[in-house]
Amino acid sequence: MIQEFAEYFPIWNQMTAEQRNRIAQVIDFKAVKKGTVIHDGSPDCLGMLLVHSGQLRAYLLNEEGREITICRFFEMDICLFTAACVMPNMQFDIFIEAEKDTEMWIIPACLYKNLMDESLVLANYAHDLITNHFSELMWLMEQIMWKSFDKRLAKFLLEESVLEESDSLKITHEKIANHMGTAREVVTRMLRYFQSEGMIRLTRGTVDIKDRKRLTALSNG
Amino acid sequence: MIQEFAEYFPIWNQMTAEQRNRIAQVIDFKAVKKGTVIHDGSPDCLGMLLVHSGQLRAYLLNEEGREITICRFFEMDICLFTAACVMPNMQFDIFIEAEKDTEMWIIPACLYKNLMDESLVLANYAHDLITNHFSELMWLMEQIMWKSFDKRLAKFLLEESVLEESDSLKITHEKIANHMGTAREVVTRMLRYFQSEGMIRLTRGTVDIKDRKRLTALSNG
Repeated sequence: MIQEFAEYFPIWNQMTAEQRNRIAQVIDFKAVKKGTVIHDGSPDCLGMLLVHSGQLRAYLLNEEGREITICRFFEMDICLFTAACVMPNMQFDIFIEAEKDTEMWIIPACLYKNLMDESLVLANYAHDLITNHFSELMWLMEQIMWKSFDKRLAKFLLEESVLEESDSLKITHEKIANHMGTAREVVTRMLRYFQSEGMIRLTRGTVDIKDRKRLTALSNG
Repeated sequence: MIQEFAEYFPIWNQMTAEQRNRIAQVIDFKAVKKGTVIHDGSPDCLGMLLVHSGQLRAYLLNEEGREITICRFFEMDICLFTAACVMPNMQFDIFIEAEKDTEMWIIPACLYKNLMDESLVLANYAHDLITNHFSELMWLMEQIMWKSFDKRLAKFLLEESVLEESDSLKITHEKIANHMGTAREVVTRMLRYFQSEGMIRLTRGTVDIKDRKRLTALSNG
């Protein structure tokens, strides 16, 4: 197992033999079913996750049950939100769920913390990961603040179609609303508009992309 | 000058004598007038800033000239947004201006980069700073998405001030939290945000209303 982890973990070769040994001793491998919430905003601390296969989604959830997707983690991605106890400044309640059946390695929080305290390579690597998240979040905020909802929705549908490798998206309006941090009605209204414009076709539980070119133009516009 | 910098830089004592020496040799001290834009989103790279006095504001700016404040830097705060060239993942155009006459130290980007590559203490410290920014940005986004509490709190403060016939409210955060059915921490955080925006001033057991117009606009917004 550790052999495969080594191939997935980009800084493995830059860690000392002793550090690799410690990781090998305590590393965990976990498989979860689609829909499993693996982190629910509580202060419990799983550790560093490295996705082997599948797809995770990190999102915020407010008191009224509304959601907004912060980011996704795919194969070979590392998730540090589940190591928040190691980051005293990380004070927010993030949720993480498996969007597909997912397999992942877990470096437990205590070992992750020890490694951060001694490994310059890891500290810089984690720094770069967080910086990347920060940058993405900034982008998302700009989208929310300044991009009109039609553009965001067009972009979302196109991205989903890439992720699902299909023009036929099995997704409810409710789910789209949760991804985008808005109400279901807002999504339904805009989807109907897209349909009336011939860009998509709506059937129960499905959004079919009909005019990719126009959707792309809209999302870039 | 380096003596005073040492007092302001929290990890000075954890750096090696050789590193301190290098910093002392190249560190710069700069004074700018209120209103000066010290970073304009271009990829030029000043380096790490440490505020000696005054106040900096980091903000995003869109094509139509609309802005949103991301964070502020006060005395003893460190700004890394001006060292974006050292952070390959930091891909967005942030602007930084002096909101008051400001004095600051600058560790040039090249030295900052070298130090990051060799100092575990600095790498972890920078990691914590970015994590903190990320956390704050997440909070700000939640406010923007789901803002209800900021409006409610603004409204509450204005109502209290009518009741007390004063702009100086003798009330604890705990009491406000009780009034609003929320946690004290939530109130404290929002009050600090109001303060950083210049709408109120906080002293022990007192909330002073400083910008009634903006608070009113917020509560109606």
